[in-house]
This record gives sequence, structure tokens and C-alpha cells, in this order.
Amino acid sequence: MPAPVKSVLPVVLLGCGGVGRYLLRHIVSCRPLHANQGVAVRVVGVADSSSLLVADDVHSSGLDDALLTQLCAAKAAGSPLSALLGQGHCQLFQNPEARSKVIDAATTLGRTTGCLVLVDCSATYDTVSLLKDAVDHGCCIVLANKKPLTGAYEDFQKLVSNFRRIRFESTVGAGLPVIASATHIIASGDPVSRIVGSLSGTLGYVMSELEDGKKFSEVVKNAKSLGYTEPDLRDDLGGMDVARKALILARLLGQQISMDYINVESLYPSELGPDAVSTEDFLESGLVQLDRSVEERVKAASSRGNVLRYVCEIGSTGCQVGLKELPKDSALGRLRGSDNVIYSRCYESSPLVIQGAGAGNDTTAAGVLADIIDLQDLFRKTA
Amino acid sequence: MPAPVKSVLPVVLLGCGGVGRYLLRHIVSCRPLHANQGVAVRVVGVADSSSLLVADDVHSSGLDDALLTQLCAAKAAGSPLSALLGQGHCQLFQNPEARSKVIDAATTLGRTTGCLVLVDCSATYDTVSLLKDAVDHGCCIVLANKKPLTGAYEDFQKLVSNFRRIRFESTVGAGLPVIASATHIIASGDPVSRIVGSLSGTLGYVMSELEDGKKFSEVVKNAKSLGYTEPDLRDDLGGMDVARKALILARLLGQQISMDYINVESLYPSELGPDAVSTEDFLESGLVQLDRSVEERVKAASSRGNVLRYVCEIGSTGCQVGLKELPKDSALGRLRGSDNVIYSRCYESSPLVIQGAGAGNDTTAAGVLADIIDLQDLFRKTA
Repeated sequence: MPAPVKSVLPVVLLGCGGVGRYLLRHIVSCRPLHANQGVAVRVVGVADSSSLLVADDVHSSGLDDALLTQLCAAKAAGSPLSALLGQGHCQLFQNPEARSKVIDAATTLGRTTGCLVLVDCSATYDTVSLLKDAVDHGCCIVLANKKPLTGAYEDFQKLVSNFRRIRFESTVGAGLPVIASATHIIASGDPVSRIVGSLSGTLGYVMSELEDGKKFSEVVKNAKSLGYTEPDLRDDLGGMDVARKALILARLLGQQISMDYINVESLYPSELGPDAVSTEDFLESGLVQLDRSVEERVKAASSRGNVLRYVCEIGSTGCQVGLKELPKDSALGRLRGSDNVIYSRCYESSPLVIQGAGAGNDTTAAGVLADIIDLQDLFRKTA
Repeated sequence: MPAPVKSVLPVVLLGCGGVGRYLLRHIVSCRPLHANQGVAVRVVGVADSSSLLVADDVHSSGLDDALLTQLCAAKAAGSPLSALLGQGHCQLFQNPEARSKVIDAATTLGRTTGCLVLVDCSATYDTVSLLKDAVDHGCCIVLANKKPLTGAYEDFQKLVSNFRRIRFESTVGAGLPVIASATHIIASGDPVSRIVGSLSGTLGYVMSELEDGKKFSEVVKNAKSLGYTEPDLRDDLGGMDVARKALILARLLGQQISMDYINVESLYPSELGPDAVSTEDFLESGLVQLDRSVEERVKAASSRGNVLRYVCEIGSTGCQVGLKELPKDSALGRLRGSDNVIYSRCYESSPLVIQGAGAGNDTTAAGVLADIIDLQDLFRKTA
């Protein structure tokens, strides 16, 4: 027999492509599990880049599971949300009206409980102003989208101003407990002094393969054919994705900095950048020009008993993103994949290492759902 | 300027020896940090094995920081709590009356909020019935003490019956986020299939040293002189401490088992057990008898490219604690110290590895404090 429902979490999802679609599936398939735990996730609205589908009565019911399943199928097939009109007790609003309807839903749900969980699984800066409005209306925020936390510092500050009402574990290393661990350590009065992370699955793969003596251009092309890379390889090789994660971690540690402050080392020179060379030409003839210099660096590191890793390093003196020579038997040198190492008073000589699958839609969506569930105490029904 | 206090957490501490004393120190030194975060920890009572010191008015004030500091000094000097009488606005009660006074405090604080956080930093089974009473009275529970969770299954079930009101991260690997990570993964609908842990700092040290070709008896004596071991070495070498942690993890994964069910491999035979041989004799002449067989096992493993680790393994088919041969380059074979590896759908080919300082009073107390702070949403003041 399921437990009595103690917490109902009303959710509006922004972005129902990759991660968002997996999230909706997980929510539907977890119903029995969550019922056993006395918690229920009620999806009251789903938005894509142009419109919002919202339940007729956000206060007492959400979009039903049949509709959510249809929605996932429609988005997988590339259809817009409007294709779902007439399928259930819901209404469709186009931008810019859609935005105000989210705030309407928050107002309807009231400010006495946690209000509404606004979940951002998009990959755009466009959601920031809506998220900030939502904070003002008492909403909780869950982010897989890194961009709202990596723009202006004032935006970050606003979004985390009620720190118990925001979760953003999946912005760094998918579901890996990096943000939660750092937050817990800080809360226990043990100041985090340094975080070193290898936060790109793509670059982690590339650097490991180079160590085995393979050519840079071949390894990168391999990564592409395995589906590990962005459509334009340079989005990975330029380090901006890692830099965004580094900025989130630095700000979490209290550094009031912006992206300009972070030294980001690109693995390609500006002469081979998107403004100068097409994606195809970069792949065909650009990459191979980098082989020799990369090989020399790998060999030089190896001759010193070291390995090269593309890491971010956040310390009290600043924040760097780029290639770093590390002893082969150091925590980061030994590990492969998505790795994070946290240093503090308690974790000084034996640092906290968190390693594991740190990418992929399924894993990221699972991390987002765990974040939503973690807010349940703010949504307890009063007896 | 500190934030307005949003949550006040009234705490009664059971056990003010090692971990408990560090906890009190951390609570006092974290006051400014917690004030900034809008949270306050109010220690309303502290108990040792014979008595309870409790604030006169648990509803509006706790034991003040000067008294808590004196208390830490008194306990460090081996004095009883009664030495502190007359030092502040508090009363002292002896057992068995002390117990009922804890429940009185819970009743006074009322059931409308999280009530009271009962923190068990003792190392005894004797607290179980008080903890169960506290659950009935709506209290939250935070445990560093493993024993209440490793007795009868019914006791475990009772203590975790309101799962949002209990935290026990520090029972396994001190502050390492093992319990929290497994709980989050499960909540996201990603079933945890297996946990493998090297959960004893002592045995982790011993196995690493053996790998470097040293003799078992010498390594163990070294561990003792470094202060890594219990007074009777066999408390470590027998594996019961690891077995208790394994049982907690197994029960967390839903296995309704008891200690009898766990296969525990002891590193010494029963002929050298505490009933047959004194602690001194074991150290002087017992240990050396084990050298040859241990050396043979280490060599046999090494010849197969493997290393020996003393691990617990919790899977769907059961729970084992003992020596295991692992490939040198596997997640657990590569790592040293307190390591935990969690496997699930999302973490199958690239499992979640959590490694770091997993022992020590300071680190364990920091983990306990993080657990207390994590309950704050259940103690929010209503505006």
C-alpha cells in the first residue's frame, strides 16, 4: 500500500528536447516509486522555445501521463507543442504570453508552500528573466541549463538568493554529487579550499587516448564518430563548456567573478576558429595541423612521469581552465572520465574524489529529478 | 549583516566523547557562518552514558556557548557532566530519569515543526529505545552511531519510517556522501544494483602496505603505532565494523536482512580470538603466525595481475564482507583509503566512485553537522 502523499511538487518544465524529454519519461515511470515514498510530482506545464502547454487547473491536477507520453513522442519526432492541442485538459500559449502564464500559475499555487518548481532543461540564456521573476514569486528553481548561472554575477546572486529553493547539481557533471558535496562540506564549517575537475567527457576521452600514443586528429575524429562531440568540434575543444562549469563552482565557493576573469585555454588557435575556417575544413585540414604540437606536449609530460589532463582548477587565487600536467599517480592523473576532486580542511591529505558517468541525457535527467525530489520538504502538506 | 533566521534547530546530543565533543566545537565555531545562512543550531541538551544536562527553557534558549566550551574541556579531561552543575541555566538529570527528560523536551518543543533533532554520537546499543520513542514523538534523528541501525530489523524499520526525518551519513565513511548519493540515485528512479566499499581506514592501510611487499604482522603493528587501530586490534581485523556499515547499506537498498545473514571473513582464526588469547599475546606471538598465509594470498593475487582488498559487496544476491581479489586497474583496485563504488543503470559502465578521508573525529563530526543543517527545511519558522 502506498504511503499517504505528504508532498506534492508542481513542476513547470522549460525545454523538452533531450534532457527535458528524458525527465518527463522518468517522472512518469517513477510514479509508483514516489507514491511509496509519499511524494508526487505534478507536471502542470511544459514549454519549448516558442510556446507553453499548461494544465487547465494547476491547483488540483497536472498534465496527465498519457499526454506527457504523447508530448515526448511528438518532441522526439520534431513536432511543435501545438501538435498536442485538444489532447487533454490543457491550453497552449505562444511567446511572449507563455511567460506570463508561468507566473500566473505560480500566483495561483500561492506563496505559502514552495509554490512551484520551475525546471530549466533548455540550453539558452533566454530563460534568465523568467527565472528571476519566478524567484520573486517564491518559486523553487531546478537547473540543468548552465547559462542562467554563468551570465552576469547579479543574475547568479538573484537566482541563489534563497539558497534552499534552488538546485543545480546537473549543471556540473550531470548527476554526480559535486555541488551537493561542496555545499554540505561548507555548511559543516569546513571551508573548501580548492576544486579540481575534469568536467568534459569529450576532452577526458581525448586526453586518455593521447596518453596511449594516438594522434590528436585521429582521436578527435574518433570521438566525433562515437557521438561524443558537439556538431562543431570546436565547441568542445575551445573549453567554453568546461569554463561555464568552472564559473558555477567558483561562484559556489563565494568568488564574485564573471567569465572574463577565467583564463580559458583553447586547444585550437584563433586562426582555426569558426570565424576563419568552416566546420568541414577544420575537420579535414585544420585538426591535422595541431598533431605535432599536441604530441610534443604529451611526450614532454610523459618524460617527467606526468600525464596531461584538460581540467578546471578553482582555488582561492583564481580559476583556470586548460591543459595541466599532473603526476600519473595523483588523484586526477589516475582517474579517467568525469572526475572531481574537492580539497578542504577535512579533505586535505585525502581529498574527496567524485568520479563516474558525468554526461548523457538519461543520467542528467535522473540528476534533475533527484534535485526536484530533494525539494519535497518545502512542499509538505500541512496535516 | 546576517540573514534573518529562518530555521532554528533544537538539538539534544547523546554521547559527548570523541565525535560528540568535536561536534559541539564545530557548532560553536560555525555560529557566524550559519547566521549568514539564516540557520541556527540550538543545543538544548547533552547526555553522556550516565546523565543529561538540559537547558532550563528549551523553547527559547539552549545551553550557551560558554557552557558548551566548558563541557568540551570537562569531557576531554575525563570529568562527568555533573562537574558542570551550577555553571548556567541548566539542570542535570541522572539515568533513568534523563531519558524521560529528553522526551519531555520533545513534547515541550511541540510536534508542529521538526520538533527536536536527537543526535546520537555514542557507540552503544543502549540508545535504541530512546531513539524509537523520539521517532514516535515526531523528532528528527541524526546518527553517527551505527548500532541503532544494525540491531533488529524492526528497529531499523522504525527509525527510518519517516525517511525525511533521519540522516545517518556519518555511519558509513564519516562525511563521504555515500548514503546521500545512493538515496538520490534511488529517488531518481535509477535502481542501485550494487555497492562495493572499502570501508575501514585500518584495513585499507594494511592491504595497501601488503601490496608493497611488507609483512602482515609488521604492517598491523605499524598501523597500531600510528593510532589507526582499536585498542584490541582484532576489533578491526575481525571485520565487524565493516559488516555493520555493509548492513546499513544493504538495508538502505531495501534488503530486509540481519547481521547473521552477512558472511564476514575474519583476518584471524578463532583459535587466536579474544576468548582464547589475550590482546598482548595476540600482538606478541599471534600475529606473526598469520604472516605466511597472508603473504601467499597476496602473491597469488599479484601473479594474476590482481590486488587484495578487504571490501564489502552488497548486491541483489546478498552481502559479503572479506578479502577480495580485484584487478589492479579496476575502480577499487586502483584506489586506496576509504572508497565506495556505486553501480546503477546510469552508473553501470562508468560507476560512481566516492573516495576520500572516511574516518577521524573531526571529519565524522563535520559530517554529523552537515546532516543536522540538512534538516533545516523541517524547522522553518512560519512567517
